Amino acid sequence: MTAPLLQSYVAGRWYSAPDEGTPIADAVTGETVTRISSTGLDVPAMLGHARSVGGPALRELTFHQRAGLLKQLGLRLMAGKDAFYALSRRTGATDRDSAVDVDGGFGTVLSYASKGRRELPDDTVVLDGAVEPLGRGGTFVGQHLYTPVRGVAVQINAFNFPVWGFLEKFAPAFLAGVPTIVKPASQTAYLAEAVVREIIESGLLPEGSLQLLAGSAAGLLDGLAGQDLVFFTGSAATARKLRSHPAVVADSVRFNAEADSLNCSVLGPDGTPDTPEFDLFVEQLVAEMTVKAGQKCTAIRRAFVPRPLVDDVIEATRARLAEVVVGAPDAEGVQMGALASLDQREEVLRSLKALRGVAELVVGDPEHFEVVGADRDRGAFLPPMLLRCDDLAAAEPHDVEAFGPVSTVLPYDGVAQAVELAARGQGSLVGSVVTHDREFARGFVLGAAHAHGRILVLDRDDAKENTGHGSPLPVLVHGGPGRAGGGEELGGIRGVLHHMQRTAVQASPDQLTAIGGRWVTGAERRDDGVHPFRKSLAELRIGDSITAGPRPITLADIEHFAEFTGDTFYAHMDEEAARANPLFGGRVAHGYLIVSWAAGLFVDPAPGPVLANYGVDNLRFLTPVKPGEELTVTLTCKQISPRGGAEHGEVRWDAVVVDGEGRPVATYDVLTMVAKTWPPAEGGADAAG
Amino acid sequence: MTAPLLQSYVAGRWYSAPDEGTPIADAVTGETVTRISSTGLDVPAMLGHARSVGGPALRELTFHQRAGLLKQLGLRLMAGKDAFYALSRRTGATDRDSAVDVDGGFGTVLSYASKGRRELPDDTVVLDGAVEPLGRGGTFVGQHLYTPVRGVAVQINAFNFPVWGFLEKFAPAFLAGVPTIVKPASQTAYLAEAVVREIIESGLLPEGSLQLLAGSAAGLLDGLAGQDLVFFTGSAATARKLRSHPAVVADSVRFNAEADSLNCSVLGPDGTPDTPEFDLFVEQLVAEMTVKAGQKCTAIRRAFVPRPLVDDVIEATRARLAEVVVGAPDAEGVQMGALASLDQREEVLRSLKALRGVAELVVGDPEHFEVVGADRDRGAFLPPMLLRCDDLAAAEPHDVEAFGPVSTVLPYDGVAQAVELAARGQGSLVGSVVTHDREFARGFVLGAAHAHGRILVLDRDDAKENTGHGSPLPVLVHGGPGRAGGGEELGGIRGVLHHMQRTAVQASPDQLTAIGGRWVTGAERRDDGVHPFRKSLAELRIGDSITAGPRPITLADIEHFAEFTGDTFYAHMDEEAARANPLFGGRVAHGYLIVSWAAGLFVDPAPGPVLANYGVDNLRFLTPVKPGEELTVTLTCKQISPRGGAEHGEVRWDAVVVDGEGRPVATYDVLTMVAKTWPPAEGGADAAG
Repeated sequence: MTAPLLQSYVAGRWYSAPDEGTPIADAVTGETVTRISSTGLDVPAMLGHARSVGGPALRELTFHQRAGLLKQLGLRLMAGKDAFYALSRRTGATDRDSAVDVDGGFGTVLSYASKGRRELPDDTVVLDGAVEPLGRGGTFVGQHLYTPVRGVAVQINAFNFPVWGFLEKFAPAFLAGVPTIVKPASQTAYLAEAVVREIIESGLLPEGSLQLLAGSAAGLLDGLAGQDLVFFTGSAATARKLRSHPAVVADSVRFNAEADSLNCSVLGPDGTPDTPEFDLFVEQLVAEMTVKAGQKCTAIRRAFVPRPLVDDVIEATRARLAEVVVGAPDAEGVQMGALASLDQREEVLRSLKALRGVAELVVGDPEHFEVVGADRDRGAFLPPMLLRCDDLAAAEPHDVEAFGPVSTVLPYDGVAQAVELAARGQGSLVGSVVTHDREFARGFVLGAAHAHGRILVLDRDDAKENTGHGSPLPVLVHGGPGRAGGGEELGGIRGVLHHMQRTAVQASPDQLTAIGGRWVTGAERRDDGVHPFRKSLAELRIGDSITAGPRPITLADIEHFAEFTGDTFYAHMDEEAARANPLFGGRVAHGYLIVSWAAGLFVDPAPGPVLANYGVDNLRFLTPVKPGEELTVTLTCKQISPRGGAEHGEVRWDAVVVDGEGRPVATYDVLTMVAKTWPPAEGGADAAG
Repeated sequence: MTAPLLQSYVAGRWYSAPDEGTPIADAVTGETVTRISSTGLDVPAMLGHARSVGGPALRELTFHQRAGLLKQLGLRLMAGKDAFYALSRRTGATDRDSAVDVDGGFGTVLSYASKGRRELPDDTVVLDGAVEPLGRGGTFVGQHLYTPVRGVAVQINAFNFPVWGFLEKFAPAFLAGVPTIVKPASQTAYLAEAVVREIIESGLLPEGSLQLLAGSAAGLLDGLAGQDLVFFTGSAATARKLRSHPAVVADSVRFNAEADSLNCSVLGPDGTPDTPEFDLFVEQLVAEMTVKAGQKCTAIRRAFVPRPLVDDVIEATRARLAEVVVGAPDAEGVQMGALASLDQREEVLRSLKALRGVAELVVGDPEHFEVVGADRDRGAFLPPMLLRCDDLAAAEPHDVEAFGPVSTVLPYDGVAQAVELAARGQGSLVGSVVTHDREFARGFVLGAAHAHGRILVLDRDDAKENTGHGSPLPVLVHGGPGRAGGGEELGGIRGVLHHMQRTAVQASPDQLTAIGGRWVTGAERRDDGVHPFRKSLAELRIGDSITAGPRPITLADIEHFAEFTGDTFYAHMDEEAARANPLFGGRVAHGYLIVSWAAGLFVDPAPGPVLANYGVDNLRFLTPVKPGEELTVTLTCKQISPRGGAEHGEVRWDAVVVDGEGRPVATYDVLTMVAKTWPPAEGGADAAG
């Protein structure tokens, strides 16, 4: 019986190519797992479907709604993860490897669900940065905002992380409101396909928000235009080819590449064998060599060790690697599985040969090693191998990547040389420095940051919680300059914004308030006679306002406040000393007295929809308030953010306190929680806090 | 006598090519202004000089130091602007045009000087975003930071703004700490060269921070690598060529393009001839057609007019254009000068011909028009020309750019069609909508934002201060998707960050504090027995801390505070009502009481180096405080920012108030001004406020 043919998900239907396709082998047994072909697949239909069905459906949803769907999706995927683990073993992955790929992917979906609810508005537009005054009169202002691009995000992925590599790109695109077409690497496409199938069958996502192309990427980029994006993970050579594709170049298609890089890990000079840092360095090196059989874009390829410690590090690494059992992922005691394919093994052996021209193989032998639970000749097995290169002029260790369980130890002297060696990788996804010496850590990080997308500082203090050199995290950017592709993914909301267009809007405060949904200084205020604290979210409108005061402030008030609170700072209590202060020129009221009195002026005491003042932002005291002054406060509803699934929402108020001459004394934002309806609906009082 | 040969500024010396070079003609008279050649110029030496001399020198300076140099430079250039105006006339520019180019360029330098001092630290690193907790225990945290790339920013500029186009790229690069090589367009290179010469002769900037290549760009990109950047302004065709240059593609060189686009301006349906918006629309259209003789990447090429208003708009525009005098920039009464060259005029006529295939030329005639003060046949003159296209299916108005005084009026019906027509430009630098109707403005802006880098909303309210459709501003992003090049420049500090690498740093709080120079929660605090408010900036260290309390808070305190301030909110005063509140469950202390008491606890009353508390950031009330609780506050020095040229600086303090069980009750940052030395140096008390 022939192995089944993988299907693609195209314009709302599963598509099977009419031909036999290419067989894909199990990495462990060599058996055919599946066949793959995209013959006859209608790529223009996929692009059209994404643009005309998926995009519009996604843009109908707010960030919070999209985040809610991601949460449901992540939980559902996580619940069914065992089936994916079973398939993952056929790619050569141990269960430890699958945790990185499968749980890592699902966790990224859940992380974006959480970030989306907490850090994005329940809206479809993201405001970026402060309002910029564009004229002295205050009638012309600027504001940057982000809206989703109207195209499709095309993913072209690597074979090593079929689940994570797909979901870490999909989650931010979906949250941004941009549909995705995923093109997995053929070798492990069956695992990506299984996840896509589960997603489609869940019925959770709007149709058109996700499509799958199983097979060749040929023609996939031909129809791209200026609102589309390409996210590529893979080799630098393929990145070059795709980046200069005529359609990509013609219309400034956003192209993001994440390519393998020659990442380094540096042991600090304090990391002698008697320190925790020495053990951490060796332990991490061994982990990075063996997890996914070293098939990680982020793995440590170059280990920089203080010259006097090189022998110690090699011996300790040798001892640890000797314990690593290589074999079938499901065999007892196996810690390192197979590479993804026999081709990959050949590729690693070719690179190893090049490295051995300048470096000595000090641990591991590709010709002689044991494999447990599998046929060594049919599976794509290799042992972990460590090289040592004492020739610092050699180019190969910084340029030749053996994409498997292979690392090279190089000696260095001093932080400047460590930085210089790190930069010889021509741009890396990640570097790590293992040291408890803060000066060394600071020197390395600030010296080498320009060449890295991420740097981990590992020491005894963060060892327990540290997530490891090789693990990108959803909340931190993933990508690196130069050889690493020059791209950037993830990084929390940063990864969402990569799918959006930033636009500078110039307008009057009234127009900008209407467009951005946030009240802008200078825009109309409305005082309809009803205190805005008496309005629930259902009634409250941006611009609703109250002005209260004036209330005089006397020397007795200041002295009383000082005595009551204990804040007897001389500027409030001692006329002579206060006169010598360059900012005050005499006794002044406490800043906290000013805001307390402002609250006393604008508060509405009886129970009502305003449940609490949970904070204050950007409080600035602008003009000193002398005894005898009087204060007037104006509070204006600035932003209304109903919270999905709760009975209340957040309301941000613009507060301005002015003195008797109308000079602003203090400006700030007051943050309150306000009920959606008032009086609350039956049983509607919720317990958020 | 032959016209002089333009020199290049290469690796610290002015370079003259050994050959005759190519003559560059005066746009008005046709006389040869100069000759240009880069024969024999050593491009690798330029790159090497920038990387090994300019970059290191710039990176020695802090942002504030670089900003200070930019300020001196901007003032010096502005003082000598008359000489540049004189040269600018030879490019065909009227003095109104030169104001945009020359004053616009110098003003951009001054804007970056100002932004750099106000919005960047007096440091060499920019912290990006919040500290990210990476583990529950608080021992492992993440922080993004920006450091300058270690390469060179190569500018390849367009002919139309030889001064602004160079300085708007140079200022942010310089502020970031990245050296520049500028390659002006040959046609107007003599003006860019004059400005570069003035900058070099000023001696203000570190050597190597600016070099000039006058002549051909051939070979300029060959030596670029992953830390270099290319900023291109010009045609979409050239952008395509440069973007796919092998060196750019090979090493992920950051490539930013800003290309001509088919920008639109939309008159709202409310803009009938009796409204101010009608006049504003016509006035702006005429300005955009005639300033720089329409040779602006941002000019209005497409004017979308409500169908019933098309005739009115054309008649009004015709009347206004009839008043426009075309001729030599220095001739009396001239409002529109020459195009930059006879070649440009030919190019415009070719595009005009293509447009006339689908549109009617309703104003202006390229064969019959008057020119004042110059020979019409020797100068590159054209009259302003307006077309009308009623065929909404025609592609040309949205695709063919006549880069001169040419616009096309098209009718539309409804906001959806206006959006759709706007997007048919395939990506624009800027659009404008002239309307007093907020719903229409909102609909157009949010609908068309994805296709624009900037959108101006013009109406009677912002008309007076509005800076115009065609004017990029230093504080707003300039660039656009798709056809507009897909790039982004300016935008205040955003434009600086484009020259820096963002790196995610993962570390323990102590390590992160040492690396980023800002105290991170969880890092060591130091209490050496000296109240930190008694330390001047010379003595204060990050992490210096004081803990004060506990102090009990009674019901009487709460009632007294309520009575004194007037804040008698029920949650403080009415036990029964407070119990019904979902967040409190009983009477609680005022948030302002908590922070007032905290200040009473940590204040040090006698005169000292802490001059004032000028604000509070990110105040959050986390746990309600019931009567009978006690409060303890810990204040920790978080960030120290000495202010250049002043006797004080800003100090940011981390404040945490906890209750008797150690639960955080309130967290915030306290902002203070602190003297650099204490007691102050002789005559050192300054008057900042």
